[in-house]
Amino acid sequence: MPSSPGSETQDWLPRITDAAQRLAGVAVRTPLLGSPLLDDRLGGRVLVKAECLQRTGSFKLRGAFTKISRIPEAERRRGVVAFSSGNHAQGVAAAARHFGIPATIVMPSDAPAIKIRNTRAWGAAVRLYDRDRESREAIGDAIAAETGAILVRPYDDPDVISGQGTIGLEIVAQCAEAGIRPDAVLVPCGGGGLSAGISLALADRLPGVPVHPVEPAGFDDTARSLAAGERLRNEETASSLCDAIMTPMPGEITFPVNRRTLAPGLVVDDAAALAAMACGFSDFKLVIEPGGAVALAAALTGACPVVGRTVVVVASGGNVDAAVFVNALETAAKGGSHV
Amino acid sequence: MPSSPGSETQDWLPRITDAAQRLAGVAVRTPLLGSPLLDDRLGGRVLVKAECLQRTGSFKLRGAFTKISRIPEAERRRGVVAFSSGNHAQGVAAAARHFGIPATIVMPSDAPAIKIRNTRAWGAAVRLYDRDRESREAIGDAIAAETGAILVRPYDDPDVISGQGTIGLEIVAQCAEAGIRPDAVLVPCGGGGLSAGISLALADRLPGVPVHPVEPAGFDDTARSLAAGERLRNEETASSLCDAIMTPMPGEITFPVNRRTLAPGLVVDDAAALAAMACGFSDFKLVIEPGGAVALAAALTGACPVVGRTVVVVASGGNVDAAVFVNALETAAKGGSHV
Repeated sequence: MPSSPGSETQDWLPRITDAAQRLAGVAVRTPLLGSPLLDDRLGGRVLVKAECLQRTGSFKLRGAFTKISRIPEAERRRGVVAFSSGNHAQGVAAAARHFGIPATIVMPSDAPAIKIRNTRAWGAAVRLYDRDRESREAIGDAIAAETGAILVRPYDDPDVISGQGTIGLEIVAQCAEAGIRPDAVLVPCGGGGLSAGISLALADRLPGVPVHPVEPAGFDDTARSLAAGERLRNEETASSLCDAIMTPMPGEITFPVNRRTLAPGLVVDDAAALAAMACGFSDFKLVIEPGGAVALAAALTGACPVVGRTVVVVASGGNVDAAVFVNALETAAKGGSHV
Repeated sequence: MPSSPGSETQDWLPRITDAAQRLAGVAVRTPLLGSPLLDDRLGGRVLVKAECLQRTGSFKLRGAFTKISRIPEAERRRGVVAFSSGNHAQGVAAAARHFGIPATIVMPSDAPAIKIRNTRAWGAAVRLYDRDRESREAIGDAIAAETGAILVRPYDDPDVISGQGTIGLEIVAQCAEAGIRPDAVLVPCGGGGLSAGISLALADRLPGVPVHPVEPAGFDDTARSLAAGERLRNEETASSLCDAIMTPMPGEITFPVNRRTLAPGLVVDDAAALAAMACGFSDFKLVIEPGGAVALAAALTGACPVVGRTVVVVASGGNVDAAVFVNALETAAKGGSHV
């Protein structure tokens, strides 16, 4: 494995395949699920890569475990620290537990209760902070300085990116097993680590298949940045149900990758995310959280055309409070017909 | 493949392995999922065989497809007829669609709306009947006599049983991949086809591992029949949320098998099934219907001891109306702490 990836796509592949070996027996090889009845209604084929079934309820375990597994043991023993709205938190906490090392997670006090509760249940210490008044980076840095813990970034880290890229390898293998060549792959996008990892794997193994990042309205920094060719920020006043992917701007490491590998970004609103959660319930029997449902939403709304095509969507997480899930089901019921 | 199974367990295995070959590429190899946080709370290990992710939303596709695939083509062309509260209906309808033959499904008028809607969406003709005033068997027989369609029974058929048995083969393989020997396997039980198929496979491949059927209170005919050594009926006044497994008595073909292969039956009430659905939501990110959740419920309530053990539970289906699922989540929320 090279010690640091170069600028070329192919330099990343050895890191991603190495990550897949590290994750064997640790991460679930999540299924790629279809729904013929949904396909009938849409006039095309949608396949869901069900990362909500991943251990810890989201894909984040893959990157966090890969990162921690690559820290030399002497350093690793001092523990890890991370900041996260919840899914990365659980991924880091679960990976730290695997290695028997302490983890401290800095979480916003308004994160979904299930994410805070589960992060603690995995054995991590949780430090809550005020999203409007405190800097999670500053808190994380202070903890690292004090304890010698190593910071596990949520996306801006080549090891984390290569871990998420293992999903891309699985999509390629599962499409081959089913005799399918997808016309497009849609990936929920926050800081861009999942998009970077998957698009790097696809660029090597299925070149020419477009990988689109999908973002919630108000947090479409990656879509705008890709169009502009430079990193742009979101308005600080934006809000969304999609807590998992509310990031301020593309990452320093993820954006140069994504600029090379991604197709244009797609944007969906909260109502579309809720409708996609209801579709996940009725057509796939999956619990998908709002931020995890935006890729499916892009297929259902037509933001990505599906008619006559085969589209793979990543359902990136399922850590949603019951009240939000109930809201999604009741909103869909009020809307009458579903997709 | 022998044309009819004898009384010995090993006579069934060739039929089950033949079914597995027929189902390759048709049925989903559903994942066997764990939740370390749930295991922490229970003090043991629970693994969920997620048949709710099966095509059509339940395991029933396996038996229906296996049965229809074994009907000689000249007869098959005349179509099939079935009676079912919904999951077998969808399994038969989807299998008939695969073979391009007509299907008529006799369904109770009070079946969950999602099951009736989806059965029609798979292309089957649906004949609704009044559960209290009409005999579904008589209606099915009349349709068969009129059209020459072949009746696909929901459980009392060796081909159907062998199809359901493929789940047992997968459980054995997935446990081996994970380096696990289960201490018990729990299976939701209506007419006993799923229990028979799985227990036949386990008896051959993992002899000595007890397979317990799990039934809803009021519909514990298999538990009582196993204890009595003869087929006993349920009270006709009983009711349950577990629509998928509300059968009057054990099957003529399933019971002699189950009497040889099953461990004692377990019983859970509707409240336990609802709590298990909430656990499926929060700990496994799965949508499980009430009747599909009774095996998980037996593990959560302690009806089957879990402490210090590894228990595999089959989540047999996920076709549940949103209102019932919302009820499960809200009941769990009111109850405060979950398991």
